[in-house]
Amino acid sequence: MKNDELLIATAVAGWKMVIGRLDGGIKDLDDAGMERHVAPGRNRVRYVVGHLVAVNDRLFEGLGLGARLHPELDDAYIRNADGVVADPVSTEELKAAWTEVHAALTAAVEKLTPAEWAERHTLVSEEDFAKEPLRNRLAMFLSRTNHTAFHGGQLVLAKEKS
Amino acid sequence: MKNDELLIATAVAGWKMVIGRLDGGIKDLDDAGMERHVAPGRNRVRYVVGHLVAVNDRLFEGLGLGARLHPELDDAYIRNADGVVADPVSTEELKAAWTEVHAALTAAVEKLTPAEWAERHTLVSEEDFAKEPLRNRLAMFLSRTNHTAFHGGQLVLAKEKS
Repeated sequence: MKNDELLIATAVAGWKMVIGRLDGGIKDLDDAGMERHVAPGRNRVRYVVGHLVAVNDRLFEGLGLGARLHPELDDAYIRNADGVVADPVSTEELKAAWTEVHAALTAAVEKLTPAEWAERHTLVSEEDFAKEPLRNRLAMFLSRTNHTAFHGGQLVLAKEKS
Repeated sequence: MKNDELLIATAVAGWKMVIGRLDGGIKDLDDAGMERHVAPGRNRVRYVVGHLVAVNDRLFEGLGLGARLHPELDDAYIRNADGVVADPVSTEELKAAWTEVHAALTAAVEKLTPAEWAERHTLVSEEDFAKEPLRNRLAMFLSRTNHTAFHGGQLVLAKEKS
């Protein structure tokens, strides 16, 4: 494996680890678990999970990988704060969307070549990218990986203490 | 810039972004802010900050960058749960350690070449690394970046709601 291929494989493995650590806890959530708040007065678990699915689903377009899968989540879980808009999907549908989005995303990013990872993401113009070459696909992917970990740290707080 | 250099610069920029987002909030903490809990019955802010400084400080040794700076934090903030061991340093000392560790780490990782990033980190043996080449310096660095973001998501919960 060439060095840049190895480095990219490492970044994708880091993403899989972050997603994988959340998979089990999300799979186990029932309606009551989804309605818990990560801390008093803060977001519900359902909002945080919906937010992560929606934000990561946008990676399909952000990374130029094709059409996203669940735009119906944005209004409730990105554009508005928790509780403003009625939840658009059931607990089971949200859990299925989590699994579907991350499985498809992981499969798609595993096909990108190192040269493609260094290309601009779709939220930056060609002109700006010429000046700021670090605004590439990998930057967006690592940023979303960190964003997922950030909210993952909140989700664990909503679990029953063992 | 060669492609692998660009990818590595992107990963280091991601680390700087995660640390940078926490810098301001940590700089503003006073004794009372440090004693808040991220959620009822959960860790104090002081424990989480101490934990991040100590775990990231270990990167000096993990990445083979030289001696770490603050081993005195491990007993209170890594080896034991919150409240078991007396806090070893004051609020001001902890904040100074946060700044010192991350400034020195960032400067040190910026000197690594792409080939060095793909080398094994010090927690994996040469034998295991031959079988698992993704257990390289970049893997450990991305993992600690995600770990920092994970706890960063908890620290924001302890802030007063604006």
